[in-house]
Amino acid sequence: MTPGPRPHVVIVGAGFGGINATRELMDGPFEITLIDRDNYHGFWPLLYQVATSGLGPEDIAHPVRGMFGNRANVHVRLGTVSGVDLDRRLVHIEDEADVSYDSLILAAGSSTSDFGIPGVDDYAFPLKTLPDAVRLRNHVLTCFERADACPELVDGGLLTFVLAGGGPTGVELAGALSELIGENLARDFPHLDVTKASVILVEMLDHLLGGFAPSSQAHALRTLQAKGVDVRLNTAISALDVDHVTFKDGSRIQTMTTVWTAGIRANPLADQLDVPKGKGGAIEVTRELTLPGHPEVFVIGDISASTDHHGKPLPQVAQVAIQGARHAARTIRRRIAGRPTKPFKYHSHGMMATIGRRAAVAEIPGGLKLRGTLGWLSWLGVHLVFLVGFRNRVVVMVNWAWNYLSRDRASRVILRDDSSTPSGQHRA
Amino acid sequence: MTPGPRPHVVIVGAGFGGINATRELMDGPFEITLIDRDNYHGFWPLLYQVATSGLGPEDIAHPVRGMFGNRANVHVRLGTVSGVDLDRRLVHIEDEADVSYDSLILAAGSSTSDFGIPGVDDYAFPLKTLPDAVRLRNHVLTCFERADACPELVDGGLLTFVLAGGGPTGVELAGALSELIGENLARDFPHLDVTKASVILVEMLDHLLGGFAPSSQAHALRTLQAKGVDVRLNTAISALDVDHVTFKDGSRIQTMTTVWTAGIRANPLADQLDVPKGKGGAIEVTRELTLPGHPEVFVIGDISASTDHHGKPLPQVAQVAIQGARHAARTIRRRIAGRPTKPFKYHSHGMMATIGRRAAVAEIPGGLKLRGTLGWLSWLGVHLVFLVGFRNRVVVMVNWAWNYLSRDRASRVILRDDSSTPSGQHRA
Repeated sequence: MTPGPRPHVVIVGAGFGGINATRELMDGPFEITLIDRDNYHGFWPLLYQVATSGLGPEDIAHPVRGMFGNRANVHVRLGTVSGVDLDRRLVHIEDEADVSYDSLILAAGSSTSDFGIPGVDDYAFPLKTLPDAVRLRNHVLTCFERADACPELVDGGLLTFVLAGGGPTGVELAGALSELIGENLARDFPHLDVTKASVILVEMLDHLLGGFAPSSQAHALRTLQAKGVDVRLNTAISALDVDHVTFKDGSRIQTMTTVWTAGIRANPLADQLDVPKGKGGAIEVTRELTLPGHPEVFVIGDISASTDHHGKPLPQVAQVAIQGARHAARTIRRRIAGRPTKPFKYHSHGMMATIGRRAAVAEIPGGLKLRGTLGWLSWLGVHLVFLVGFRNRVVVMVNWAWNYLSRDRASRVILRDDSSTPSGQHRA
Repeated sequence: MTPGPRPHVVIVGAGFGGINATRELMDGPFEITLIDRDNYHGFWPLLYQVATSGLGPEDIAHPVRGMFGNRANVHVRLGTVSGVDLDRRLVHIEDEADVSYDSLILAAGSSTSDFGIPGVDDYAFPLKTLPDAVRLRNHVLTCFERADACPELVDGGLLTFVLAGGGPTGVELAGALSELIGENLARDFPHLDVTKASVILVEMLDHLLGGFAPSSQAHALRTLQAKGVDVRLNTAISALDVDHVTFKDGSRIQTMTTVWTAGIRANPLADQLDVPKGKGGAIEVTRELTLPGHPEVFVIGDISASTDHHGKPLPQVAQVAIQGARHAARTIRRRIAGRPTKPFKYHSHGMMATIGRRAAVAEIPGGLKLRGTLGWLSWLGVHLVFLVGFRNRVVVMVNWAWNYLSRDRASRVILRDDSSTPSGQHRA
């Protein structure tokens, strides 16, 4: 599988890390194989907008082959990586032949962690993939349809939406969901008492948006409360069941919907590797982002337990994966050029989270903090710029302009996955 | 369930017939209940573009509640109608209470017919719903991914796409699929010999586009052949199997993909009614589009065996459903006003079918025929105008402009329906 005499770089994962590593290397003297289980690069910072009918799933997905398809030295492979043979330098792919490498960049990302809390795996809605977002959207809209047909079910928690985790995803989802309900579903269901619906954001710690400045955290809290979100700080969930959540203090809430954004851990691929792991199963790396004893294997982004130069763990955000990708690519280039390599150094470009219509918090290095409309505009701009593909940018811009001006959300469509026609058809 | 003293009109189906009937009646002194199994109105004339990655599923789906949600007298119900009690004037809905009516408009549309050909139900891809289109898109793209990983599978028919039926859907799909392969997938898969892929359009009769003028039929045939489509006229399929199609003459083609647009029949709801049926199980109607003996029950669109004033069956196209809806609504209004009613009279506005990039045939009443770029531009205009919702129009226009200028198709995304996270979560 190593095509030609040029070094073969295998990249696992087409997220922010994988596509940026490919971009940095594709003009060099390399054969590159980029492997992902999906054929698209997902722009996950906007996933919550798909879940809340603001965008369609295609708007945040860019076909990977479209990015690199005309490069003869880039080989895109659809497949699930099941393990790595570090000694023989082989990547195992489910149901496919092994792929050998000269350099390997592991950028497989993260998955949801249930923290061992009973019922999370069975009853919570994760929000990590496009199908997750479509499933959550279908579920929320179907809850309202059922409530409209049988209003007596509302008392059983049919319109109670519990969001576990007060990080950026939980905060953004809480804001968007309360707007979807208050602005759109209230109009869609004139015969239903939509004021009975509630959005409950549950956070174990005493603040939202861990890692942000206290003033931003307080602003997010106030803004969500003003939108009618029931924010419960210092609250821990002890169990989930089919129709209720149980808290550590023994109290319960009836609900048919718990979205789990509380826990994140390394992609299960990390569990398949017999190497030291850190918090959340992330793979320990050297200062060069390589596996100890394997300088040819880079581990970047969410699957990597990378730290800053003070030894402090880096957050699981796109910027860390992008900068890790650039570092890995440059190190590979320097090595074949016989030049000395450098340790990885992370430069924070700041953090932002949107809370809804004209409401966001943004923190720029140097201490500048933007809030409200200004924070929101900077959030819009940054996300449009980083969205991959001209067409996606235009369509997302049209959708956002439409959503903003009309207070409409055009994607509130329940896309069933069953076919209309009874059919046992085969699939490729 | 009959709210208030105003006449209750129940409309089954939110297709072209159902939404137009609702629009025509909603300003009148009626309570209206519109029942559909989906929460959106699908713009089916563009379904083949979703199947061939030109548009996303949301672009052709408009939420029904968004159309009528602010009208207190319009009640939208999500549900599958399982039967009608004509004597007691009750509509049965699966898993829900019955709904009574004063007037009923059945506009449930059509489904795929296998003509009793073995294997069609099991192995053919239907193209009647949004999930059908997404499933076909996923399948076609996955065939190319598999062929790229294992080129030896191509000889087994992995890149052979058989389209059964030379009507508008088959012709439009053949043109779009050959462009997707020749323009996009050829670039996406530089290491795959895409010239081995073939699109085979099979038609039983000696011409494509039945109902069009012979010159339009010949133009469609020539245009498709110029695009590399293997058009086989006078060819009948006798059986489908998991990896091949068998023709009446005993010959076979190896293929993993047969799309079935050949047969259409009335929605299965028609089978539940003990009334006279015509061709394809469609319900026989009077000159007023009502059930014989039940002037309060209108049957319009594809589920109706309606005829023109010469007794000739009407085609199963949007225009017939729309005009049938207007006729039913006007008849109901005239009756409550005590005015005489009129028989239904269909006015053809012409026919059009697109064959690909700057290629279409359009026939306008009076004998005017448009072809090529002019036909294509008129096709674009008509479809944009009739597409429901401003946002959908803008997004479709952006997508089409992008597809045209860049020869790109941004929606070539394989959206798996399984979740990334193992989860047995409940659904509403």
